[in-house]
Amino acid sequence: MAVGDDKLGKLHPVPGFRLGTVSAGIKRPGRPDLVLMELASTAHTAAVFTRNAFCAAPVTVARDNLQSCAGKPRYLLTNTGNANAGTGQQGIAAARACTATVADFAAMDAKSVLPFSTGVIGEPLPVGVIQAAVPAVFEALTADGWTEAARGIMTTDTRPKGHSLKFSAAGQAYVITGIAKGAGMIRPNMATMLAYVATDMAVEPGQLHELLAQAVDTTFNRITVDGDTSTNDACVLVATGAAGNTPPADTASPLYQALRAALEQICLSLAQGLVRDGEGASKFVTVQVNGGHTEQECLDVAFTIAHSPLVKTALFASDPNWGRLLAAIGRAGLEDLDVNRIGVYLNDVLIASEGCRAASYTEEQGVAAMAPEDIVVRVELNRGSASGTVWTTDFSYDYVRINAEYRS
Amino acid sequence: MAVGDDKLGKLHPVPGFRLGTVSAGIKRPGRPDLVLMELASTAHTAAVFTRNAFCAAPVTVARDNLQSCAGKPRYLLTNTGNANAGTGQQGIAAARACTATVADFAAMDAKSVLPFSTGVIGEPLPVGVIQAAVPAVFEALTADGWTEAARGIMTTDTRPKGHSLKFSAAGQAYVITGIAKGAGMIRPNMATMLAYVATDMAVEPGQLHELLAQAVDTTFNRITVDGDTSTNDACVLVATGAAGNTPPADTASPLYQALRAALEQICLSLAQGLVRDGEGASKFVTVQVNGGHTEQECLDVAFTIAHSPLVKTALFASDPNWGRLLAAIGRAGLEDLDVNRIGVYLNDVLIASEGCRAASYTEEQGVAAMAPEDIVVRVELNRGSASGTVWTTDFSYDYVRINAEYRS
Repeated sequence: MAVGDDKLGKLHPVPGFRLGTVSAGIKRPGRPDLVLMELASTAHTAAVFTRNAFCAAPVTVARDNLQSCAGKPRYLLTNTGNANAGTGQQGIAAARACTATVADFAAMDAKSVLPFSTGVIGEPLPVGVIQAAVPAVFEALTADGWTEAARGIMTTDTRPKGHSLKFSAAGQAYVITGIAKGAGMIRPNMATMLAYVATDMAVEPGQLHELLAQAVDTTFNRITVDGDTSTNDACVLVATGAAGNTPPADTASPLYQALRAALEQICLSLAQGLVRDGEGASKFVTVQVNGGHTEQECLDVAFTIAHSPLVKTALFASDPNWGRLLAAIGRAGLEDLDVNRIGVYLNDVLIASEGCRAASYTEEQGVAAMAPEDIVVRVELNRGSASGTVWTTDFSYDYVRINAEYRS
Repeated sequence: MAVGDDKLGKLHPVPGFRLGTVSAGIKRPGRPDLVLMELASTAHTAAVFTRNAFCAAPVTVARDNLQSCAGKPRYLLTNTGNANAGTGQQGIAAARACTATVADFAAMDAKSVLPFSTGVIGEPLPVGVIQAAVPAVFEALTADGWTEAARGIMTTDTRPKGHSLKFSAAGQAYVITGIAKGAGMIRPNMATMLAYVATDMAVEPGQLHELLAQAVDTTFNRITVDGDTSTNDACVLVATGAAGNTPPADTASPLYQALRAALEQICLSLAQGLVRDGEGASKFVTVQVNGGHTEQECLDVAFTIAHSPLVKTALFASDPNWGRLLAAIGRAGLEDLDVNRIGVYLNDVLIASEGCRAASYTEEQGVAAMAPEDIVVRVELNRGSASGTVWTTDFSYDYVRINAEYRS
């Protein structure tokens, strides 16, 4: 199950960036499971990784290598079907063996290859299978490989996710394209999520990292399916520099601002795409909290609503159960919360105010508001001017089925 | 669905405490839904309530009245079928109207009656229906009414919960009996839970409150079904004083210690009974975390495991998915966690160590460990001497069904 349109739009090639996708045989034969991305020598790369203390071996190796190559890796190697997580020292060696094979093939230093893995936790990575497919995945490299790569990184995803934009700044045209995977274990601080975004703009490393951190904070870190944080998440931003521009002088420059806006749009689209394809999702829910003292307290309320199994099962049932919404708001831990000032809306229908059902509210309004696949839960705290928004799904039979059966 | 034995043992009468249960007609005809408890004039009462900011009207009124009557209420009135929560000022008035009727009937001050409600949120309390049943519920008062009352306070519970003990201290015999209800919205800081415990021992108010707070902290506040905190929770401890003893002089006295131990046993049995009857539960899971720097960090790890939908769906599938356990431990927020020192056990089978699957572990062992209804997940952090234990359930299709259909 998934929510909304599943069409993948046109993904524009990004000069200086090529992608190859093959079926190495990690998953069942014929399914794409190995993706190689090749970066121009002019490219700078920024990345953020999972904050889970049990991070997977490829995360450790990718983090190390990104530092060792001073933010200028030349290859990103991604396998699905196996997360290489919970595999201890042996897993580190396995990740290094795969990157070494890629580096040898390209006659590069092993530090210039970053590994990424997603799939089942705790099984040894099939190193030989991956190594054997390295020549083929080099052979497959093409600037037009984004759509195939979007499929190649999928696990329990039911559809590929990608977004692409052309934009201009200071009289020059640029392109930015991104793909992502992830459907469960989605929550703030990076989820079971891999995302790769590339632009042809030249950007200095410090600015590139800042751009990525900002974009992730307001997009990928604001989505949740089940509150679980994965061991493998990574989000990578590459600026190939193939456009030949002079890098933005500072964060106030039009170039920087244009890229910031385009990147945020790409990341928001990818993040919302992950939620729409959330495991068992039948609703796409925007939880918007306004009128808080701080953005953080708005997010606290929004995430408490978004994580509540009782709210999520009510959403699954299309039940306008405002009582569960009030209960979730009430336990979000806000100091001195005056419940009588709070207004709760479903798609602009006021359902609760003054601590109880709104006088104007009718069940018919509530049922009508819950009927669409896309629902906005809006909470007005009426105690300040800050806001915060998160995106989530409902909790369905299918969520239980998918996660009860995943390993069996 | 529920886990384990559903026999309710003998619930001993507590001198100075009577209970009456009737079908007032709040729920469908014939189902008991109104319970009155009568306390001797010598009784002292302590209570703890939900910390949800959206607390229900009866919680507000009960808290006020308990203070106004200086901890010496004479009646506890509980209705099911309607939580009188999310009902605003009208709800407060409704709760007061019901307690006033009880007080009038008994020719007492209205402050000496504490109201409790559980059931659906946001519907107006049917005051007239409750008031009309007041004479009948007085008529029904009997010292032997515990078992009927345990049934009378049920909502989505599939079985009544009660526990009773006789104990001696300083050469005198005492009795302590408790009942509780709750099956969903169960989490620390009081859940959708009502619990009433009475003893015939005479105890000073300050000690009584301390005894209750301690017992709740290590029992009811260590259980979780779905992470949701209810608007209506309350746990009440009554010491009727009918035994005629001199109250314990201090907390070191044998009398105090005997009551402390008996109370903890009662509360633990009731709390575990709530988990065993958790909505959709097919497993009773003890999550024990040892070797932490502090009890709090052990509890942080234990609750992160207990709340993880991915762990819970694996438990439902009887899948020894140690990878999801490692991932949950890793995101519990512990500083400087050395994942290589951690051992994870399922029913004494070591399943993970040194950050990966234990060398000695076989899938057969894991499958065998997951087969019973009662499962112990044990985590050895190996960085200190503190421990913490919580109890929870799995996440099943039935949980979704029960909560998606509850209001429809």
